Formats: sequence, C-alpha cells, structure tokens
Amino acid sequence: MADTRFFTRPIPRSLAELAALAGSAVPDSPLKIADVAPLDSATSDQISFFDNIKYKETAAKTNAGAVLCRAEHAALLPSGCIAVISADPYKAYARIAQALYPEEKPSPLLHPSAVIDKTATIGAGTVVEPLAVIGAGVVIGENCRIGSHASISHAIIGNNTVIYPGARIGQPGFGFAFDPEKPVKVPQLGRVIIGNDVEIGANATIDRGAGPDTVIENGAMLDNMVHIAHNVRVGRGCIIAGQVGISGSTHLGAYVQIGGQAGLTGHLKVGSGAKIAAGSGVMRDVPNGGEVGGRPAQELGDWLRQTAYLRRTTAKKA
Amino acid sequence: MADTRFFTRPIPRSLAELAALAGSAVPDSPLKIADVAPLDSATSDQISFFDNIKYKETAAKTNAGAVLCRAEHAALLPSGCIAVISADPYKAYARIAQALYPEEKPSPLLHPSAVIDKTATIGAGTVVEPLAVIGAGVVIGENCRIGSHASISHAIIGNNTVIYPGARIGQPGFGFAFDPEKPVKVPQLGRVIIGNDVEIGANATIDRGAGPDTVIENGAMLDNMVHIAHNVRVGRGCIIAGQVGISGSTHLGAYVQIGGQAGLTGHLKVGSGAKIAAGSGVMRDVPNGGEVGGRPAQELGDWLRQTAYLRRTTAKKA
Amino acid sequence: MADTRFFTRPIPRSLAELAALAGSAVPDSPLKIADVAPLDSATSDQISFFDNIKYKETAAKTNAGAVLCRAEHAALLPSGCIAVISADPYKAYARIAQALYPEEKPSPLLHPSAVIDKTATIGAGTVVEPLAVIGAGVVIGENCRIGSHASISHAIIGNNTVIYPGARIGQPGFGFAFDPEKPVKVPQLGRVIIGNDVEIGANATIDRGAGPDTVIENGAMLDNMVHIAHNVRVGRGCIIAGQVGISGSTHLGAYVQIGGQAGLTGHLKVGSGAKIAAGSGVMRDVPNGGEVGGRPAQELGDWLRQTAYLRRTTAKKA
Repeated sequence: MADTRFFTRPIPRSLAELAALAGSAVPDSPLKIADVAPLDSATSDQISFFDNIKYKETAAKTNAGAVLCRAEHAALLPSGCIAVISADPYKAYARIAQALYPEEKPSPLLHPSAVIDKTATIGAGTVVEPLAVIGAGVVIGENCRIGSHASISHAIIGNNTVIYPGARIGQPGFGFAFDPEKPVKVPQLGRVIIGNDVEIGANATIDRGAGPDTVIENGAMLDNMVHIAHNVRVGRGCIIAGQVGISGSTHLGAYVQIGGQAGLTGHLKVGSGAKIAAGSGVMRDVPNGGEVGGRPAQELGDWLRQTAYLRRTTAKKA
Repeated sequence: MADTRFFTRPIPRSLAELAALAGSAVPDSPLKIADVAPLDSATSDQISFFDNIKYKETAAKTNAGAVLCRAEHAALLPSGCIAVISADPYKAYARIAQALYPEEKPSPLLHPSAVIDKTATIGAGTVVEPLAVIGAGVVIGENCRIGSHASISHAIIGNNTVIYPGARIGQPGFGFAFDPEKPVKVPQLGRVIIGNDVEIGANATIDRGAGPDTVIENGAMLDNMVHIAHNVRVGRGCIIAGQVGISGSTHLGAYVQIGGQAGLTGHLKVGSGAKIAAGSGVMRDVPNGGEVGGRPAQELGDWLRQTAYLRRTTAKKA
Repeated sequence: MADTRFFTRPIPRSLAELAALAGSAVPDSPLKIADVAPLDSATSDQISFFDNIKYKETAAKTNAGAVLCRAEHAALLPSGCIAVISADPYKAYARIAQALYPEEKPSPLLHPSAVIDKTATIGAGTVVEPLAVIGAGVVIGENCRIGSHASISHAIIGNNTVIYPGARIGQPGFGFAFDPEKPVKVPQLGRVIIGNDVEIGANATIDRGAGPDTVIENGAMLDNMVHIAHNVRVGRGCIIAGQVGISGSTHLGAYVQIGGQAGLTGHLKVGSGAKIAAGSGVMRDVPNGGEVGGRPAQELGDWLRQTAYLRRTTAKKA
C-alpha cells in the first residue's frame, strides 16, 4: 500500500465500476477493490495486472482479488481470482490506478513563492509549484502543472501539460558566430510552443527558436535531462527517454521513439514512427518507420550484424 | 516578425547604417530596414542573409529588401534585392540583429527574490534574475547576466559573462577516498574562475577546484548540461556543445571544439584548436589541431576508416 | 593557501596530532602544520601527500615540512622533509584536510528562503540552503546538507547525507501506457529511500518508485547529472560518475563502480563489485565483480580485443 505520508488512501470502489473504466465487464461480484498492488503482494481486496508471460508463475500464485489480463491468460490465474479481461492490461491498470489515486491539487493553485510575471497568462486549474519562475508574456493553458524551480520564458503552452521540477524552457539557444576576439551572439528571436498533454522531465532544457519556433506537439513525453536545441520540432506522441540530446533545427515526425542518451545532430528529418536505439548517434535522416542504432547510427539490422561480426571474429578459442 | 509579447519591435534603421555595422558599404539607397527575417519569409523592408550555397534557390526567390552575402553570390539574388557584401554573412547578420534587438535589462537589475550574500560583489550593469543564489565572497564583474535559479558559490567571474538558468557553479567536486565503511571526503579548497564574455548553458555544472582552481577562460561557450569537474581548465574561445562531460584536471587549450555528448576522462591535455567529434570518448591527450572521434576516441581518419571497413565487410549481398 | 574569501584559515595543529588522525606516528618534532598543499607549492609549515610514483621527481624537490607517503617511498623525499607513513596516503590526506577545514554550518541552519512543508521532518544539525523545496511528509535525518534549489518530495533520507544544488528527488518516474490519442499516465505510488552518508550530485534526478521504492543505500556517491529512474536500487558504497543514466527497475549490488556517461537499460541485475567503463551501454546483467565496456557493453577484455582488432585490421601501411 502506498505510504499515507505521501498518498491519500483510496476510497474502495466496486470491481464492476473499475472494470468498466478499463473497458471490460466482469461476472457479477460484490467485490470492493481497496487498492492496486503487484501480483506478488496483492491481497484479496486488491487488483493487480498480468501482462508479461514471463511472470506466469507469479500470476499462478497471486492472492489478488482480481487481475487484469489478456483473454488467453485468464486460465493461468488461480481459482478464486477474478480475471478482468483487457487487450492492454497495463493501460487498463493505469486507468484504474488513476481512478483510485486521483491527482490532488494544492490550495492555492499558484504557490505564493513562485515568481509569476504580471503579464503572464495562467489557465484555470493550472498548478504552479513553489519557486517556479514564469516570465513576461508567457501563456500557459488549463490544468497544467509547473514543477518547483522550473523556469519558463518566451513560451506558449497548451492544456494538461506537465513541466517537472527544474526544467528550463525558453532560454536563448546556443547561437553565435565565431570570432577570434570573442563570439558574436545571434539574438534568438523565436519562442517555445508546447502542445497539450505533454510532459517535460525534471532538469530538461528546451531552448527557444532562433527565428522559427521550437515546437513540442501534443502528447509528446520527454524524460529527465532531455536537451532540445533551438528550432527543433518534436512531433505528436513522441517518446524521448532520459538524457537524449537533439541539436538545432532537427524535426521529428509523429510517434518517434528515442532511447536514453541518444544524440541527434542538427538539421535532420526523422520520419514518423521511427525508432532510435538507446545511445545512438544519429547523423543522417531516418525514414518513416525506420529503426537505427549505433554511433554513428545506421539501420538497426546493419548495426547488430556488425556487432555480431566483430564479436565472432575476435572471439578467443575455447 | 518576432512575437511582440516577448520582444520589442525594432526601430527601423537605414540600410547604410546597418551595412556599416557589418563592415560593408551599399549603393546609395533610401531603404529603411524594419527587421531581420529568413530568406523565405523576408519582405521588402527586411534584411536577410545567404551564406550556405544549398539555399541558392530560396535566395533567388527572396522578397527581402536586402541580403547579406558573399561577393561571389550577389549575382544569385533577384533584381531589386540589394546585396550587402560580407566575407562572413552570418556574423554580419548577428551584428545587425544585435543592433535591431539590443539587449534589454530589467529594473531593478537585481531581482528582489534573488538571494545574494551581503559579502558578494556584483559589478555595474549586471543583471541577476529571479531566485538566483549568490554565495558569500563571490565576485561578479560588469554587465553579466545571472539566470533565474542559478546557484553560484566559491567563484570569481569576469565581465559580460552569461550564466543561464539553473547552472550550478562552485559546488565541491566529486572527491573522496574509498573506504568500505564509508567514503572519506576530501575538502575541496579551490575556486571557479570564469573570464569575460563566457556563456555557461542552462543546467550546466561547474565544480570548484580541489586545491587548484577550475578555470573557464575568456570567450568560452558552454552549452546546456555541460559538466565540468574539479581542476579542469577550459581555454580561451573553446566551444563545448550540449551534454559534454569533462573529468577532473583535464586541460583544454584555446579554441577547442567539442561536439555534443562527448566525454573526456581526467588528467588529459587537449591542444589548442583540437576538434572532438560528438559522442566521442576521449581517453588520451589530443595534440594541437588534432581531430578525434569514436569511443574510445582515435584520430578522426582512423575512426572513419574503421567504421567504413566494418560496414563494407558485413554488408548483405544485394 | 585557500582563498580566505571562501574558506576559514586553518588553526595550526601539531604534526603529531595530525599524523595520529591519519593512523600514523612521527618522530618527535615541534613542527606545527598550518595548512595542506600540493607537493610543488607546499612550504615548510605545510603537509602534502605523495601517492602516485609518477610524481617522484616533484616529491624529491618538495619544500613541504611533511609528506604523507607509503613506507617504500619515504626515501624519495628530500632530507629535512618528515615522512608520515601511511598505507593509503590519499585517505590520510583527506582526514587531515578535514581536520584543518572542518565543515562550517550557517546560522540559522534552515535558510528562511527555503520552502519547507510543515509536515516534513528535519533532523538535528541538518542544513537547508537557500531556496530548497522540501515537500509534504518528507523525512530527513541528522547532519544532512540540502543544497540550494534542490527539490525533494516523496522521500525518506538518512543521516549525514548531502544533496547538492539543483538535484531533483522524488518526482514521478517516466510511466505511461501508450495510446495514440494521448499517453495514459500510470500513477507513481512509491517513494525514494536514501541511506546515510550518501551524496547526490548537482542537478541529478532521482525519480520515485512506481509501486516499489527507488532506493539509494548507505555510502553511495552519485556525481552531477546522474539520472536514476523509478524502482532502481543502488547498493551500499556504489560510485557513479557524472551523467550516468540508470533505467527503471535495474538493481546494483554493493560497491559497483560506473564511469561517466554510461547508460544501463531497465530490469538488469548488476552484481556487487562490478565495474562498468565510462560511456558503456549496458543491456545485460553483469555478474559479481564483472567488468564491462562498450556499446553494447560486453566483457571488458572482449571489448578491448575488438577495438584493437579493428584498429590493426584497418591501419594504413606506413
């Protein structure tokens, strides 16, 4: 059970009601669900989920009152445990956990220690945590959450978006002309445009555009310490893992997935649905649906073949 | 045109006056320039620049009133567009954009929410943004800008230097002696010395020296999330891209360029003018003017040859 | 000598007293030691250390009054310089430097600009620096130091632990189920548990658990910008260098060492005493005492052999 110093104990809900949230129906049952829990610790008034067949032995022994699972896995559960059938048990679990642990909002919504410029616009229901800084002219939509110590300037942000603590949004990008005397700075005259339902991880940095804008489209998820340079576009629903860096003017299509610590050089086009392996160094365009890996990145199959060749060729004789 | 919620609309200036800033002369013209803009969106009262021959078709169709370009490219511009000749059009553009968008300073210069120790010294014209923290004894020169949420301790900083939001300057370095019971910390007794015209990117970290100082010389440009460990020296005019990490006691000469996400191990000497490719892992000294790449880093030519060999050797038959 | 703007000048101590702190005895001597200093700048009232045989020429010329060194190196010191014998001269130096430069605490211990929730518990002797944020329910033990601009929520922290400026502890991990409409967030219901004598570097991020906790055990040292994802466990005395990223649910045993910029994928087990080279990309379990390197990481010997093979095979003829 979640630590009640940090989380409010859920109000029990009927299994039928929770199953409906997951788009499922269950046999008529008086069962009240008090909480969510993992398969190995759940008790008879808790619901768990079983998605990865690797855990079938744990599932077979669970004491959970109910388990979200695929139809073909229902028979693996112990008798007495109610199977709640779902094509996507993890997503179903997410919806049920959201219902049991609804987001809590502080009062007042805008912490008095935050420094919010009087020309900034903050939408209804948006939370601004302690010591955040929101600069002149910034627009933030409804039901957002701006984490503690985040700094936001030169930005327009949609609804339901979360900026985690310490993220830096809108500072000038790394733009200057070389001169041996001293660098000549290029004024950065664009903005950062962030859509709805976006997440920007803790201590991430998103520089504003140099002239065009830097754009993060709806539903994009950026993990901690991701760096987005000026003029970059991140398409709808992209998933970008921790410590990734994207150089200036690179554009990602929709639903691109990038593994942790990958780096992309500037002025690239990455097509929709592309997948970039963790730690890759991408120096060329990637087509729609392409999969790449390695430094420098190449087609995933090529990279794996090269890695295997090198291992085989240099293997010590047994 | 830049968003007037964030930028002050420029005061129009005569073309002749702006061209002079770029070290150029223009035919006698009554043209007033109202703004800068890219080639493809500029209008007849705006100035643009044309540097990369890749954009020659865009240049041929531009509606800009004037374009900064090299002498040999002037004939590629449409008739009616005034060519402003420059050997370095991008740098010329930077100077003109600076003139149209002069840096604006807040009033008061030191935001009242910043926590500035009474023993710190802040030079004339220096801006300290909201919620920055400046510790005891710190010295900051003139016309600097200290970003919101930056923390500065044990540091001496020159003039015209910019510390972006969330940068951490002067905390103790990663110094301890191993002991199975618990690590034995080594007091870090040095400082951070930062020169003039330096930029330190958002959320970068610069640890103070262990005994010697950590030094960043004049004109060095460090991008976001760069990590500089204790006792490191970064020479004049070095350019260090995002997410680079430099381990303790490594010394860079002047004008070294380091691509994003590269890492340098400790106690190295990197000669002046050396270039380190993005994502490299440098474990040996690099001579003056040397170019290296790869993990572990080697001479750039060797690394490229190895990469090509591996690709060729394992290529699938067509 | 350390800059007295930042450090309090030490009170001179007798050599015998300091040697005793290092577990050593010295010939009867009236020498008072005023400070620590490197071999090449130390004067007759200062103590230095000599650990690495590479510096034997510097040691032979030192003007230090006393030098910590191994028994077999004592004869290399100049006559008149007192050798203070230690099996671990660097650790001995650390203890002596600690004695000369005892940690100083501000008054009041909790800076009034910090935002500390009234339900948080802060132990005796703990320092909270300016503008730190400590959330509801957080427990922090005794004699800790919480750096400026650090944010801490959903966390239980032991004694003598240091959180450096800008570290982010306890925000929700990167947890959501994919949905083309918009990501479905999974409530993150765990905590961050941090032991005694831990260090968390500047701008590091430690996400709270998804259900299990994220755990950092006693004596672990995490450098700047390390990213620890949800449900990770870092064992006792682990040493993790700058910019390392560890993905969700990976568990490290005790005394694991990880070089800078390495990345570990999720759900791995890394055995006690394992060593992971800088820049590695670890995608498989590592056994106790294992040593790995490369991307993807493999046994260190295999990786070095592959690197050498590739270099040899493609070398240009002289």
